[in-house]
Amino acid sequence: MVMAFLPDFWKAWAPSPAFHNDAMLTFFYAPHTCALAAHIALEEVGAAYEAVRLDFAAQQQRSDEYLKINPKGRVPALATDRGILTETPALLLYVAQTWPQANLAPLDDEFELARMQAFNAYLCATVHVAHAHGRRGPRWSDDPEAWASMKRKVPDSVGACFQLIEDEMFEGPWVFGRRYTVADPYLFTFARWLESDGVDPARFPKVLAHRKRMYERAAVGVALTMQKDEG
Amino acid sequence: MVMAFLPDFWKAWAPSPAFHNDAMLTFFYAPHTCALAAHIALEEVGAAYEAVRLDFAAQQQRSDEYLKINPKGRVPALATDRGILTETPALLLYVAQTWPQANLAPLDDEFELARMQAFNAYLCATVHVAHAHGRRGPRWSDDPEAWASMKRKVPDSVGACFQLIEDEMFEGPWVFGRRYTVADPYLFTFARWLESDGVDPARFPKVLAHRKRMYERAAVGVALTMQKDEG
Repeated sequence: MVMAFLPDFWKAWAPSPAFHNDAMLTFFYAPHTCALAAHIALEEVGAAYEAVRLDFAAQQQRSDEYLKINPKGRVPALATDRGILTETPALLLYVAQTWPQANLAPLDDEFELARMQAFNAYLCATVHVAHAHGRRGPRWSDDPEAWASMKRKVPDSVGACFQLIEDEMFEGPWVFGRRYTVADPYLFTFARWLESDGVDPARFPKVLAHRKRMYERAAVGVALTMQKDEG
Repeated sequence: MVMAFLPDFWKAWAPSPAFHNDAMLTFFYAPHTCALAAHIALEEVGAAYEAVRLDFAAQQQRSDEYLKINPKGRVPALATDRGILTETPALLLYVAQTWPQANLAPLDDEFELARMQAFNAYLCATVHVAHAHGRRGPRWSDDPEAWASMKRKVPDSVGACFQLIEDEMFEGPWVFGRRYTVADPYLFTFARWLESDGVDPARFPKVLAHRKRMYERAAVGVALTMQKDEG
């Protein structure tokens, strides 16, 4: 993998015949975001990709250049030779399907695949959304007092999500039992934020053991090191 | 299809050898919710299913009986002979994969499938969440003034979502061009709420034409009639 930095990312990404022929992937991310999940997945399958870091503090995700890549102004985004893909549950399924030999999803079983997609949808639309109320209040209100009120609720709402995961969803040692899937790096991504969300991880021993288990995986180490070293 | 009413739904659903052998599906929904999308999809494929309506006004989604089915206390949920599935993007993919002859998703193309899943993830985690701030404020704040503040922002946030769909995502005549997919009933579900979200649908001529087009489909008529007539 090659690492590139903004403001050169547009040049680095711009599709060209060579880009197309190489079927190279370019992965757009920012540290401390949910993009970690897809980053780990790309490492798990041994994908050839270029990682492009966006500086959220400089609002690079809102730059004209990046909005041409992802009009939503969010990460992650994955540029492929056929176009751009976004949204973590979609990227995770794409990685699992494109590298089936890595066995990261129950691709031959539509019921088990739907369970995995349901878990990922819950992380995406409920867990991540609960977390986001701690720092993204302006998405849903124009009132600073409401932002503060939302922030106060985060330990409660995120805690309730993880209680449900701990009690009802998590099988162990991985999310779906003995089978490691793309749901695992996605859960790990949010489990890393528990302390900053004001939630004591010790309340969730299964999730906490999973988090420790994830740190032992080579792909996790590589993705975290890349995201850190570029900072 | 057979329609059942709470409080008999538990009896109606409880798995039995007969249930198992018939591979019958039971679909749990409430009117005026996102469950409409999966309901339409079930009708599109001609699935054999029992529809069970929950009364949200009576908080049936929080009943002990229903929480055994879906501990999240939400709809939709689909009881299959192998267990329960939840989360609209997952249910839609499941329906498309289980009835491949209905051709409701690009199942043979992982890139196009990821695009469809990304669109559905955006509806699930951004559009639906923006809408939900109009009436589900207590999920994210304990302060009634913050709820009111969130509610005031809904026309703006939902409107911005639909502007992006209109300008950047929607291909026409269906979401993904000539191919009708499960993304269409999902978009339709939220497009029906524009007026109640305080957004003028006339701002989005492509989405509005799509909404009208959807009403002409037999499956949409059946699902809407079922949801209405049971009320």
